[in-house]
Amino acid sequence: MCQLMGMSCNNRATTSFSFTGFSARGGLTADHVDGWGIAFFDGQGCRVFQDDQPASQSPLADYVRQHPIRSNVVVAHVRKATQGDVQAANCHPFQREWLGRTWVFAHNGDLRDVECPSGCQDMPVGSTDSERAFCILMHRLRQHFKACQQPPSWTELAPVLADITNELAAHGNLNMLLSDGQALYVHCSTHLHQLTRHHPFPKAHLVDRDMSLDLGPLNAPGDVMTLLATEPLTLDEPWQALATGEFRVYVQGQEVWRQHNPQARAFPVAWPDPNLKKPPVGLLVP
Amino acid sequence: MCQLMGMSCNNRATTSFSFTGFSARGGLTADHVDGWGIAFFDGQGCRVFQDDQPASQSPLADYVRQHPIRSNVVVAHVRKATQGDVQAANCHPFQREWLGRTWVFAHNGDLRDVECPSGCQDMPVGSTDSERAFCILMHRLRQHFKACQQPPSWTELAPVLADITNELAAHGNLNMLLSDGQALYVHCSTHLHQLTRHHPFPKAHLVDRDMSLDLGPLNAPGDVMTLLATEPLTLDEPWQALATGEFRVYVQGQEVWRQHNPQARAFPVAWPDPNLKKPPVGLLVP
Repeated sequence: MCQLMGMSCNNRATTSFSFTGFSARGGLTADHVDGWGIAFFDGQGCRVFQDDQPASQSPLADYVRQHPIRSNVVVAHVRKATQGDVQAANCHPFQREWLGRTWVFAHNGDLRDVECPSGCQDMPVGSTDSERAFCILMHRLRQHFKACQQPPSWTELAPVLADITNELAAHGNLNMLLSDGQALYVHCSTHLHQLTRHHPFPKAHLVDRDMSLDLGPLNAPGDVMTLLATEPLTLDEPWQALATGEFRVYVQGQEVWRQHNPQARAFPVAWPDPNLKKPPVGLLVP
Repeated sequence: MCQLMGMSCNNRATTSFSFTGFSARGGLTADHVDGWGIAFFDGQGCRVFQDDQPASQSPLADYVRQHPIRSNVVVAHVRKATQGDVQAANCHPFQREWLGRTWVFAHNGDLRDVECPSGCQDMPVGSTDSERAFCILMHRLRQHFKACQQPPSWTELAPVLADITNELAAHGNLNMLLSDGQALYVHCSTHLHQLTRHHPFPKAHLVDRDMSLDLGPLNAPGDVMTLLATEPLTLDEPWQALATGEFRVYVQGQEVWRQHNPQARAFPVAWPDPNLKKPPVGLLVP
């Protein structure tokens, strides 16, 4: 599987400290060694850094750890390949443009029998179930909002995305971070935790490295930041687990929308599917 | 204006030496200081590095200079803003996915009165004439090949792209590098030079830095590489200027297709357009 990290905040902030802990899971404290990626939104712009080397050893990850980039929204991923080989084209987050905004997507889970429909405008470049799911998701958004010339607001997008993620999550575990830089959309099937920080900001200690940071001097009283991570990144902070089937939206660091699908299920890591007629491209037998 | 650098080769090669010279034009030997970007294709994957800082000073450009990335095709750009402000969203190369391939585009020139048509599937994220031209180009490709489920070959794409670039070049100078990782498509309105290297490989000396490199030990006898650049990057090598209206295609380091439009014109750097009814978004009065 893989691990996810996300951030939403109201004033552009850096995530070097969090990424230092998170990227250790790419080979140092966990075995998600098949590549990594991180997307930083700043205004309309989105910069994505990716490498197929383990995040704990990658010189580019070292660059990202040492050069703080201020952002409103961050989406990051360390990969442990289940479907698709180890190469740059299979590194998350994936990105597509829609109505003049860059959308990025990172996923943890194993999805079966997800194939892009004929006429799907977005097609996968690599060979992962995750990118196929992203293409389907963007295709569904394009269809639903096909009359739009401008990007819909998050209030319009949230219920539509909740429906789409519910459908995709019927094909396997969909722990997911999705953003267009305006909002951070999150779905949980099995493992995802959130932490919201605001004044007074604590001193934080990483789970994965023996490092602490006093967040007080780095933040102003009005700053609000929410972090998402597959497993908590820091000790002594009130991380909350999301429930199976939860879909949440974060804007400017705060949760603004939530829906829970009580029919959602968590799939075992290697789950059999007796109805699977043909194996999806790149499927690895566990 | 801006400057362009491109590379096509038959065996994955690095461009650190060339980029060291090229990126000096972002603030050291020329004033293209409004950001830079470079795309590296490797197999299906495409990694893009961008920054809105001058390439000669950007820590990320320093990372790219110091960490060679082996690629089949490279597209790079240093920006001097004419339309659109200085921000990440306006840094070239721009990228879009079409039929499961990543396409990247970098442009030097000033295009007037280019607006995405209604229903254009690709919309600009930033505010440059260049990204609008790229969106129009991709829209035209999608329309022309709308029956295709698989990416067309370069032999099918070349004549269609030659027509599209001819049309765009009627709106201003279109010095352009475009690639899907399979082929490198090039159009020249004013300034673009090419150099093909093969055995025996020379010792090259940069124009912009006092640096030499003996290319012999770095290459095998069968290696072929073509470099494209707005102005020659090295001394003592046979760089050739492309003509106004030339469209060329490079595959695996070699020129494979060429068309010349004798009606094409080179526009002055700040050219008046008496027929311009409304200024395009972000147009700066010279």
